[in-house]
Amino acid sequence: MVRDAASDDYEKRIRSSFAKQGLMSTLGATLDKVLPGLVEIALRPRSGISQQHGFVHAGALSAIADWAAGYAALSLMPPGTGVLSAEYKINFVAPAIGDRIVARGSVVKAGRTLTLAQAEVFAESGGQEKLIALLTATMVTVEGRDGISD
Amino acid sequence: MVRDAASDDYEKRIRSSFAKQGLMSTLGATLDKVLPGLVEIALRPRSGISQQHGFVHAGALSAIADWAAGYAALSLMPPGTGVLSAEYKINFVAPAIGDRIVARGSVVKAGRTLTLAQAEVFAESGGQEKLIALLTATMVTVEGRDGISD
Amino acid sequence: MVRDAASDDYEKRIRSSFAKQGLMSTLGATLDKVLPGLVEIALRPRSGISQQHGFVHAGALSAIADWAAGYAALSLMPPGTGVLSAEYKINFVAPAIGDRIVARGSVVKAGRTLTLAQAEVFAESGGQEKLIALLTATMVTVEGRDGISD
Amino acid sequence: MVRDAASDDYEKRIRSSFAKQGLMSTLGATLDKVLPGLVEIALRPRSGISQQHGFVHAGALSAIADWAAGYAALSLMPPGTGVLSAEYKINFVAPAIGDRIVARGSVVKAGRTLTLAQAEVFAESGGQEKLIALLTATMVTVEGRDGISD
Repeated sequence: MVRDAASDDYEKRIRSSFAKQGLMSTLGATLDKVLPGLVEIALRPRSGISQQHGFVHAGALSAIADWAAGYAALSLMPPGTGVLSAEYKINFVAPAIGDRIVARGSVVKAGRTLTLAQAEVFAESGGQEKLIALLTATMVTVEGRDGISD
Repeated sequence: MVRDAASDDYEKRIRSSFAKQGLMSTLGATLDKVLPGLVEIALRPRSGISQQHGFVHAGALSAIADWAAGYAALSLMPPGTGVLSAEYKINFVAPAIGDRIVARGSVVKAGRTLTLAQAEVFAESGGQEKLIALLTATMVTVEGRDGISD
Repeated sequence: MVRDAASDDYEKRIRSSFAKQGLMSTLGATLDKVLPGLVEIALRPRSGISQQHGFVHAGALSAIADWAAGYAALSLMPPGTGVLSAEYKINFVAPAIGDRIVARGSVVKAGRTLTLAQAEVFAESGGQEKLIALLTATMVTVEGRDGISD
Repeated sequence: MVRDAASDDYEKRIRSSFAKQGLMSTLGATLDKVLPGLVEIALRPRSGISQQHGFVHAGALSAIADWAAGYAALSLMPPGTGVLSAEYKINFVAPAIGDRIVARGSVVKAGRTLTLAQAEVFAESGGQEKLIALLTATMVTVEGRDGISD
């Protein structure tokens, strides 16, 4: 994915980019927290994002985890840059069942060209959080707004 | 994700499981080919599954790739078993732009407990295919229909 | 890799297993810390484990990281079980240069069949630690001492 | 890892780089084939690269697989460039037992900055090859000989 960085206000940039993401709207995801190097994106379980047993589908979990990691990376970058996922790996450790699913993205190592980011995905039930997935992603810094990598 | 295997007809089992996937319907994905060890799932690019520059979002690509790999694994398993993605890794190598996006899942090594599957994702434009992503996944065999992993 | 668990003393089991690893001896790795769910393995940079610019080679970093993660997983398992790496992913974020390289393995989620473990690899120079690599691994529990997977 | 490309003869560059790798010599690995986009590196099983049950250790497999993938990437690059592994993932699908272990590296997609390469690792026994591991790696192009990434 590509995210722009058109202003020097990282939160405004990230919220503006998020609002243009068709898939996030389709999934019903919300951008719940934007801090430097830390971004949270949440989902409410519902049938349109489920797999056949009613759990939130791995594809929806991956999407919010990848976004949370990517925006966390973007929050530390200068204006005029975007980021793109070169690759990610995600491990699923428990079923995605609960009142709310939240992906918490953070930056492991910020570099000039490549940034290593990760996202933990939690299911919340009755005020308790349980880890359900862990993503690590290699993000590429892209100069300029149309910077889709080769 | 979990996929059931309620009959000994692998294609029927896979088509029936696919039809119950809420997220696949939300994404507009179609199950285009089901052979032993080879499954294709396709998408038509549209705004509801895009990122901000109009390309199909990485999250949607990952979802169809994970499914194609998982159903390819399931096609080789005995009736009464399901599969679950323990983890996957996906590399994105070109932007997802074209008339049609297709994920082609295959089995690298089928094991009793773990199966290594992969999916290549292609963008089709004017009759030409271009590789845009590559996924490798560890699938876990699950006995019985509610076999969500620990 | 497979690691045995022949007694109920996890530290003794792990130290005994480590002592039998031909590659660890070849690399000159040492087992520096064994706690429940936390294991550290270290290396001293030298020419026999270097790449052409004199940094410790990625292959040696991966080996100690995989071991540290695997023994961390094993430390939480009952006697009579072993673990085996089904897969791992490692990101390299800085060159492996320093006085000492240490891989710190920990358990993210312990399951009956699969355990998600990770290892952070640090380079130490003048008393300072710097993160140089991050590994996440899926470990499989193996019953009995010869439990090589399928 | 970093590999130089000091001349326009890719095979000479690769053989020269390989000869300077301390770890390859320690492991007893040999560079058996160098073609454009295809490189093979082999090992003979022996106690110094084993784990405790006598199989070749995962760390040694990863090292030759990472190298084979990296040199395959380098074989397609212009003189004066090197490559570095940003990350790799490896799945182990069968025990590393046999007369000879060979890692066959190839290029999935060559890009200006990033190249996706993979390596299949086979165990040979009595003239038969069996797949034992699969690696996918993101390689970064590095300009100049000391191009260690950020």
